[in-house]
Amino acid sequence: MLFNTRFDKEKAAAGFASEAYGEAVVYRAKGAKAAALMGAVASLVRSVGGADYRLPHTGWGEPAGIPAGAVTSEDADLISHLVTQGNVRMHLVLTSGNGPDVLSYNVVADLKGSEHPEQVIIVSGHLDSWDLGTGAIDDAAGVAVAMETAELVQRLHLHPKRTIRVIAWMDEENGGHGHDAYATAHRTEFLNHVAAIESDFGAAHPLGFDAKISANAVLWLKPAQDILRSFGANLIKLTNDSPGADIAPLVQAGIPAFGIMQDGRTYFNYHHTAADTLDKIVPRELRENAAAMAIMGYALANLPETLPR
Amino acid sequence: MLFNTRFDKEKAAAGFASEAYGEAVVYRAKGAKAAALMGAVASLVRSVGGADYRLPHTGWGEPAGIPAGAVTSEDADLISHLVTQGNVRMHLVLTSGNGPDVLSYNVVADLKGSEHPEQVIIVSGHLDSWDLGTGAIDDAAGVAVAMETAELVQRLHLHPKRTIRVIAWMDEENGGHGHDAYATAHRTEFLNHVAAIESDFGAAHPLGFDAKISANAVLWLKPAQDILRSFGANLIKLTNDSPGADIAPLVQAGIPAFGIMQDGRTYFNYHHTAADTLDKIVPRELRENAAAMAIMGYALANLPETLPR
Repeated sequence: MLFNTRFDKEKAAAGFASEAYGEAVVYRAKGAKAAALMGAVASLVRSVGGADYRLPHTGWGEPAGIPAGAVTSEDADLISHLVTQGNVRMHLVLTSGNGPDVLSYNVVADLKGSEHPEQVIIVSGHLDSWDLGTGAIDDAAGVAVAMETAELVQRLHLHPKRTIRVIAWMDEENGGHGHDAYATAHRTEFLNHVAAIESDFGAAHPLGFDAKISANAVLWLKPAQDILRSFGANLIKLTNDSPGADIAPLVQAGIPAFGIMQDGRTYFNYHHTAADTLDKIVPRELRENAAAMAIMGYALANLPETLPR
Repeated sequence: MLFNTRFDKEKAAAGFASEAYGEAVVYRAKGAKAAALMGAVASLVRSVGGADYRLPHTGWGEPAGIPAGAVTSEDADLISHLVTQGNVRMHLVLTSGNGPDVLSYNVVADLKGSEHPEQVIIVSGHLDSWDLGTGAIDDAAGVAVAMETAELVQRLHLHPKRTIRVIAWMDEENGGHGHDAYATAHRTEFLNHVAAIESDFGAAHPLGFDAKISANAVLWLKPAQDILRSFGANLIKLTNDSPGADIAPLVQAGIPAFGIMQDGRTYFNYHHTAADTLDKIVPRELRENAAAMAIMGYALANLPETLPR
């Protein structure tokens, strides 16, 4: 999950469990630029993550024209302490760099609808990850959960009326070129895009969905909620923002959109760090997420009428 | 705190909260040597610490004549997974080395007793630390707590009958030359060493003391326990092992010995890692430890008779 000026602290504070992250990340996203405007030659920010294991937490920042880095909370404490004693000189060796743009792809697979194949429900996560860990919670889990929706529907021999489209978005983290390209390529079909779901907040227990839908559409979801309640994933929380970065262009086009609302209490301990690895995912909770997306995806694909916008 | 063949898993399992560490650390301590005997060219061990933040946890191992390292739990999982798929080749770059021996010192300070200055109660922690973090919990906290004993006794204008000797031991981690040197230098005075206390298990809330004392000595401590109870530090748990690495030579000489028994639930998340830094210490809990050592140290220094051996 990317947090930047588009998907910023209000979004985080409104939509997710970790309000503290939302309030703090603005310093990483905008701090270097602000420092550069004041004449800084370089910028360091205290890591915004929640862990205190000498682990830098990194992520997007507004291009600032000066070297910028994130230091661990422990090192930030030390620097802060030294600053109280006088001027502090630091020697920075930053080895980061921008590679050339390369051609990459969204991965898209359709499970064709039996009655209205032209009507599409998107279930999705994003394929890229930040560069330190392997991206297990951000966002291999989301891709796995989206793939499981198609898998579960087939394994149960269900034949939804509308098309379920699994998308593994490319480049969520570094500019959103993947979802932008999708929006450009498919804009003429958007009237037939019934809804879009994304999972991009890890793989912890799902509490329900953030939903950018009209208030009167909520009642249509009652049967799905009744099933989701069986494992505590039945919340539907209306939001005014896109409930996922990759589905934001769809939201702008008025398409109903959902994001799985995971229990995010540990998410920012690992997100965008070297510790975002598969062992952080609890298999039972991953299965709950797959079930949640499959239930909601199937429900939307099989509603008597398309969800009202 | 060092765990090795002298101060090994039985000690850890019996005396401390983290039995899991005690059971696991033997693989780090003895694994490389065992591997070398079987012809290994190098040895890696899964980090024995409790954290899952891509943080290597290091420490003493029996000299093995081959390169040996600790990898994070995440990387151990990965290697283990790869091994199930076939042979795994690794390229190791280990930059560790043994520096030359240098002269260093125990730091010793006496608060002279008013009636029996020749009778000594030792309060102590160790001055050196493992090389990755700054050693805040292992064992700057112990040194601070020992120094606070003398500080508190003076601030309260108390004049204990016996001498309170504050010791910051050198080289607990790498062979124990400091406490061995003390034992050699002071052996003729050991009959006047009434008791020794060490704090070397972090700075979390003290639950009481591990005590290598005779069972009939416990009753003598009842008045101190009554005071310690006011902040939940009143346990006296008899042990057959030395309750601290540095006071082991004193224990061998029959001197009653105590180790503060801290709540160790987070200790092995940080111990011997780069994250062993001051922010891990809760000031209130550090004060509780200082109070616990001061109460026990003063009580031992002021008993009507010396504690029976």
